[in-house]
Amino acid sequence: MLLLLVNRSNLKDISVNKDMLGQFIDLLLFIVLPRVIQAFESPWAYQCIEDKCVRVLKSTPHEDFISLDTCKLICGKGGTLWPLPTGPYKLGDQVVFLKKEKIVFRKLASPCSDVDMLIEKMMTVLHGYFEKMEEDGLKVTVPHGADTEHELSLDIYINRCEKQITLQTNESYSLWVNTEGTSTVASIAAETCFGARHGLETLSQLISWDYAFGSLIMQTSATIIDAPAYPHRGLMVDTARNFISLEKLLHIIDGLAHDKMNTLHLHLSDANSFPFDSKRVPQMAKYGAYSPRKVYSFEDLKELGEYANVRGVRIIPEIDAPAHAGNGWQWGSEYGLGDLALCVNESPRSQGACYDPPCGILNPVNNYTYDVLESIYFDLMQALNPDMFHMGGDEVRFNCWNNTNEITEWMTLNGLSRTEEDFFHLWKYFQNTSLQRVDNVFGRDTPVILWTSSLTDQVAVNGHLDPGRYIIQVWSGSRDFTIPRLYYTGYRLIFSNVDAWYLDCGYGSWVGDGLNSCAPYKSWQVMYDNDLDYLMRGFGIRPDPGKILGGEAAMWSEQVDDATIDGKIWPRLSAVAERLWSNLPERWRFAERRFVHHRERMLLKGIMGDAVQPLWCHQNEGFCYN
Amino acid sequence: MLLLLVNRSNLKDISVNKDMLGQFIDLLLFIVLPRVIQAFESPWAYQCIEDKCVRVLKSTPHEDFISLDTCKLICGKGGTLWPLPTGPYKLGDQVVFLKKEKIVFRKLASPCSDVDMLIEKMMTVLHGYFEKMEEDGLKVTVPHGADTEHELSLDIYINRCEKQITLQTNESYSLWVNTEGTSTVASIAAETCFGARHGLETLSQLISWDYAFGSLIMQTSATIIDAPAYPHRGLMVDTARNFISLEKLLHIIDGLAHDKMNTLHLHLSDANSFPFDSKRVPQMAKYGAYSPRKVYSFEDLKELGEYANVRGVRIIPEIDAPAHAGNGWQWGSEYGLGDLALCVNESPRSQGACYDPPCGILNPVNNYTYDVLESIYFDLMQALNPDMFHMGGDEVRFNCWNNTNEITEWMTLNGLSRTEEDFFHLWKYFQNTSLQRVDNVFGRDTPVILWTSSLTDQVAVNGHLDPGRYIIQVWSGSRDFTIPRLYYTGYRLIFSNVDAWYLDCGYGSWVGDGLNSCAPYKSWQVMYDNDLDYLMRGFGIRPDPGKILGGEAAMWSEQVDDATIDGKIWPRLSAVAERLWSNLPERWRFAERRFVHHRERMLLKGIMGDAVQPLWCHQNEGFCYN
Repeated sequence: MLLLLVNRSNLKDISVNKDMLGQFIDLLLFIVLPRVIQAFESPWAYQCIEDKCVRVLKSTPHEDFISLDTCKLICGKGGTLWPLPTGPYKLGDQVVFLKKEKIVFRKLASPCSDVDMLIEKMMTVLHGYFEKMEEDGLKVTVPHGADTEHELSLDIYINRCEKQITLQTNESYSLWVNTEGTSTVASIAAETCFGARHGLETLSQLISWDYAFGSLIMQTSATIIDAPAYPHRGLMVDTARNFISLEKLLHIIDGLAHDKMNTLHLHLSDANSFPFDSKRVPQMAKYGAYSPRKVYSFEDLKELGEYANVRGVRIIPEIDAPAHAGNGWQWGSEYGLGDLALCVNESPRSQGACYDPPCGILNPVNNYTYDVLESIYFDLMQALNPDMFHMGGDEVRFNCWNNTNEITEWMTLNGLSRTEEDFFHLWKYFQNTSLQRVDNVFGRDTPVILWTSSLTDQVAVNGHLDPGRYIIQVWSGSRDFTIPRLYYTGYRLIFSNVDAWYLDCGYGSWVGDGLNSCAPYKSWQVMYDNDLDYLMRGFGIRPDPGKILGGEAAMWSEQVDDATIDGKIWPRLSAVAERLWSNLPERWRFAERRFVHHRERMLLKGIMGDAVQPLWCHQNEGFCYN
Repeated sequence: MLLLLVNRSNLKDISVNKDMLGQFIDLLLFIVLPRVIQAFESPWAYQCIEDKCVRVLKSTPHEDFISLDTCKLICGKGGTLWPLPTGPYKLGDQVVFLKKEKIVFRKLASPCSDVDMLIEKMMTVLHGYFEKMEEDGLKVTVPHGADTEHELSLDIYINRCEKQITLQTNESYSLWVNTEGTSTVASIAAETCFGARHGLETLSQLISWDYAFGSLIMQTSATIIDAPAYPHRGLMVDTARNFISLEKLLHIIDGLAHDKMNTLHLHLSDANSFPFDSKRVPQMAKYGAYSPRKVYSFEDLKELGEYANVRGVRIIPEIDAPAHAGNGWQWGSEYGLGDLALCVNESPRSQGACYDPPCGILNPVNNYTYDVLESIYFDLMQALNPDMFHMGGDEVRFNCWNNTNEITEWMTLNGLSRTEEDFFHLWKYFQNTSLQRVDNVFGRDTPVILWTSSLTDQVAVNGHLDPGRYIIQVWSGSRDFTIPRLYYTGYRLIFSNVDAWYLDCGYGSWVGDGLNSCAPYKSWQVMYDNDLDYLMRGFGIRPDPGKILGGEAAMWSEQVDDATIDGKIWPRLSAVAERLWSNLPERWRFAERRFVHHRERMLLKGIMGDAVQPLWCHQNEGFCYN
């Protein structure tokens, strides 16, 4: 075993024992370097000085030096951990070489066999990551000569039988890593297997690939107590403006898991397309999918849900209604059910029936509309068994209803005239009626989510939607006064502020000249700094923690599909992840070095995030910002 | 052979013979559909109406219909051609099914065997594309039942022996496609094999994959006369801020070829890193590469150049100097050569030695600096044999020179004081001396390129740099008055306007808060509309065609690397490509439908461009814009 001894307290002491360091350098040169068949040996090495990895020439006399990979693992209080733990934590200052064959997961009995199986799958996922790291690493580096016998074994302790992650799941965990001789033991203790899974992710961040030595390296000592600041930490993916394949969604879940995000909210349908191939209403995808290949079958969603659960991620499906619905709903008349949706595929320029093309809004006075919705809900419940359901509810314009005889006649019959208030009544009628259909399927205990809209803005004042039942997803800007109104009305809130957590902003317009409507681009810095406590205090509110559930970054897909979605989501989503998990009082500058390193690590895990800086900034910490 | 008969003149005639259409529909349903094992059959089909592919329900009575893939090939004057030909062209209105085994390339003897070999490679590339299209297509569609015996054979006629593409290469070609019975003959005639290669690209755009029928389909008739509007059509890739791998550069060349772009300009070095592993000066990459794995060897560049030439692309290497140089130049003193570069890795905040971190500028008063440059030039010449060389020359600040004793002492000795004008003299001294070294290597006939800078702005007025020798690459904004000054001084110009053709703008800042310095994002619309004739007319100039060589989109890499570069380059580069090849008087709205289709086609070719619209807009042409 080649144990790199790096005692941080000695690093600034240039009078350190020269003989020892000399021997150490000789050892490096003798054992390792001749076996590396690269074009040349880099003259650069690193030292950990004042919590920064500082690049130095190896020829600098009387200095100890280590590789950048090793330095990052042991330098600075948090090392490379992302998101930072919220409880007390402490990392050691030594690393050892490791081979993946020497990583032994000792599965300890948990309270029930279902959870045993889950834990086994979770450990397989982690092991797969080490295998990939070694396989990829060995493609470009040659293994070091010293054969290491070092062994890592892992114990997991779990208290509860919980086998599906929900908003209520206790996600806390503790992780201890201790090394004696050639043996390291990692122990994870957690209430639930989902907490333990977070512990496995953290453990994976204590192990890295050393490109200078061609080996896995591992931090030898750690104590970490950790739990998330917010229970709802997620990403919304729109699968209707452009289709996102099942394979890509599975890959996105991998990334969410690495960031300890626990929610994938699928904006499954919109006016543009309806990709869910419902068993009970096959007409929806037949008419509404972009093609027979761009669909999710019932089995696809079932697979997605199970894959996500193993990675600590819950799926929240959304069927947006009554607006943002059109394609997929065109078959009603053909089947004798009348019009299920109105103004389908109309241009917003004709009559202003919607904001962006294509238009489409459900027909709220046709009872079959609700029957179809209930059938779709039923399929989603059976496929995903979600602990929450998203009913959409954004961007309703009344022009289409107002221009449809069937609607206005119904309104007259029901004592409504055609003022804006009357149309709000109609919208509430739709909302209440479709909620009954949700209740029929998911039960009255399932919370439902609605986007902020002119409706939620109204009810925030007059309280027509039950705050005990509805959760409001705030896409309004972070200074919009709808936020305190909703909060004081008693709603629980999920934040997706358009001015901070929208991943689609700042590209060219897709309906004319100029930039798209939510430009400019939201940088990772803006995303990191969207501190919900601070946001609420801006309204003079010290928020009740039970009311602020957390947040979601939003990947609307008008201008993204499988081809480029990874780079638009990452690394910015990681910034949101640390905000929601760690919720540190600090701003982005504090996180910058770890963030940039985490982006590089995510690449090794297959998550192809965008670059945010020249690599020079990573190799010369603190020179680009501090 | 199943020949889809689509006579556009009949499309609006709903009194068309019902029996024939009925039989046609029966044929479709009977032969093809039962074999497609997709979840369902799409109820949608297309008609070409007034040059648009219009989506209709298949159940609509008395209408003929075709698939979207077929419709795009035959609908509208230009079909799916991108960039549009500049000479007369005409496409037919019929398609046939085709199998890749039935595509026979009859290589005709060209004037010399070198070119024969090149043409053979070019045809292999094209055939590889059809193989990929069929292979990928068959993964998601089932082949149609009707076995087609249709055959495509290809003849190529070439006049000249030219075997390396340069600025002077005649790239024109003519393409004829004629069908008789079950046989289609495509003939390409061109002066050079590089013109013929463009013909092959055009031919590839007449062949598509039909997802409804699970088969290659081909336009049966075409006459196309074509030549580019500008001789210099390129992309600049910065490989120094972040490293771009050889594999990725090869892939980028594939994309350039599909867009008929003929230039890849490599910004090989910058202050951040020096990835070229020069044979003669191995110290450069050893000290300057980000790692021993992030380098281009001599052989890598040789491979790159040959790969590019087969695809009609020339490589122009750039060694930026005297500024934008630092890492890689640190070893001078150690080897007894003195300081080759100054202020290396200094922060711009200390003394304002540069604009962005890290600083670094060459030492113009050390003769070894020029010796090293000449050695690097020599390696590049041997590896790439470029027909032009780029000397960089942008963003010099004088503070570093002014703060260096060696420099100021030399200036005093040479009769210079320390005014701004004196430092311009020093810069010109550097430029003239390094040009001599370029001449030693490349010869005096090789044009050299410089970026616009305060130096070119000066000499545009007082003419110190020979307009016969220097080409100026204009990164100034499209309304900057440096443009007419340079033009009137007699320089030939290459345009890379920062306000139109910069691919890196609009993301978050990498040196502080806010957005990066050239924000906002340049949309494809802005890129398409950067019409150089129009730009020059804005200055009251009717440009001499010989002076306006063309342009390059610029992919600076501070915030991009292998992970996401495809989606930042494409599809926007295709917009620049049509501007430079076709240079139509029209603006982007004219090109929008073809552009969106071309992006989809590039995906099939493996070029993972960003999405610019919901797929709905592609499937419902003209509804999002027109």
